Amino acid sequence: MFEQMKKIKGKLSVVGLGPGCADLITPRAISAIESADLVVGLDELLAQVEHLLPGKEVVTSSRSEEVPRALAAVSAALKGRRVALLASGDPGVYSIGSLAQAALRDQSWHRGSSSQFEIIPGIPSAQSCASLIGVPLGHDNCTISLSDLLSSWDDIKSKIAFAARADFAITLYNPSGKNSQNQMVEVREILLQHLSACVPVAIIKSAYQPDQSIVLSDLMHFLAHNIDGDSTVIIGNTRSYIYEGLMGTHRGYGETYDLVTGELRKAD
Amino acid sequence: MFEQMKKIKGKLSVVGLGPGCADLITPRAISAIESADLVVGLDELLAQVEHLLPGKEVVTSSRSEEVPRALAAVSAALKGRRVALLASGDPGVYSIGSLAQAALRDQSWHRGSSSQFEIIPGIPSAQSCASLIGVPLGHDNCTISLSDLLSSWDDIKSKIAFAARADFAITLYNPSGKNSQNQMVEVREILLQHLSACVPVAIIKSAYQPDQSIVLSDLMHFLAHNIDGDSTVIIGNTRSYIYEGLMGTHRGYGETYDLVTGELRKAD
Repeated sequence: MFEQMKKIKGKLSVVGLGPGCADLITPRAISAIESADLVVGLDELLAQVEHLLPGKEVVTSSRSEEVPRALAAVSAALKGRRVALLASGDPGVYSIGSLAQAALRDQSWHRGSSSQFEIIPGIPSAQSCASLIGVPLGHDNCTISLSDLLSSWDDIKSKIAFAARADFAITLYNPSGKNSQNQMVEVREILLQHLSACVPVAIIKSAYQPDQSIVLSDLMHFLAHNIDGDSTVIIGNTRSYIYEGLMGTHRGYGETYDLVTGELRKAD
Repeated sequence: MFEQMKKIKGKLSVVGLGPGCADLITPRAISAIESADLVVGLDELLAQVEHLLPGKEVVTSSRSEEVPRALAAVSAALKGRRVALLASGDPGVYSIGSLAQAALRDQSWHRGSSSQFEIIPGIPSAQSCASLIGVPLGHDNCTISLSDLLSSWDDIKSKIAFAARADFAITLYNPSGKNSQNQMVEVREILLQHLSACVPVAIIKSAYQPDQSIVLSDLMHFLAHNIDGDSTVIIGNTRSYIYEGLMGTHRGYGETYDLVTGELRKAD
């Protein structure tokens, strides 16, 4: 009996689904859901893998209930169940993976215990959004969340200033709801202290979804466009360009090589 | 004859394969390779999709020949061929996608011409490496390449200092070859001006490959471990922790919620 108890093997897999279309979900993510007996996630994520759910218990909750959702998944895994906790994008970046792992720690989970823990990576929002407009993150870059639920707005603004001074391309996540237009006015002011008004800016909504929308603009003009909580904003750096509906951020190849002939450019 | 010429539809797909194991490649990436008649990439990337290559023309080149490789792909697509240009990780981040797009621009490609251009996103190295150790990129974070072939070492050091001041978790790509240990000594000095010596550091080599290796350490001690050109180094921030072989970077949930009961913590 005791031996049998010890054999119970729970597992918590935090599964990155990517941007949400079937052909950008990895086989490893599919397999983790198939081998789970409990699947936990937002309605919109469960809908993406609906065909994998028959026969499984499913727990959903609203967007704001991320703490109970993560705790439900952790608790079930610690009791020996095989749980897939769904995340959009990459599960480790501004996502429920962070919360699940913190809960495991606070509940004194230990490696080698009866429950395993794994993160299955997916394509992050920054990269799925970027890919639709070319290579805006082609050089050093950062992601900053504008959600001030857990961080102070002053801290967020400070990060934006340092990011601009570092000349990173910047992906802004979570312009948060009704104040996002005001936030963006402040963000733009900070950026303009360090960057020229013609630096490219892209606003991407619902990447890879039927209602996808893309705007390419620049620091001077991008506030003329609607930015809401579902938008991702990519700010270029001093090496960014827009060309034929594509945005790019150079690493410097064009300065070193002739990109028509491939020859090394002669030093002046 | 003229009409027939106009119908020629070339296509350049820059394809992100992810970290390099079959079950982390997306169906969209597979499909782009299947529908190509020319596949261009490094040997190690071609080997990952060997089963898709019979019947196709294949062009390989050495790691250092990225400019001729990108130009071969661009040139063939502009001539009307369907080309898959392979990238590891995400094709837009420190990868050949950036070079291919710059070459298209320099060769006056235009949208609606006889050739199409697309980026197929993949799981970036930062995320595939991170997923093996938990959620080290759970809050605002950046990636910085240490390769000084196209950027000056002073610029790179400046970015590292701003990133530390912004309190980003930092993923360092491309510790470049034989000078990497010296570079890392300088990187560590800069980081220690802004961060405590106990900030977690992870060194990941060959993520998801048979020879994968992982070291968890901290700013004080990480230089005792080997870091070579194939290593990716993840530096935590003031909110990072190591627990049971996992690294995490908090977003602050644990300060706001009791992660055992799920209850909101009372203000002091």
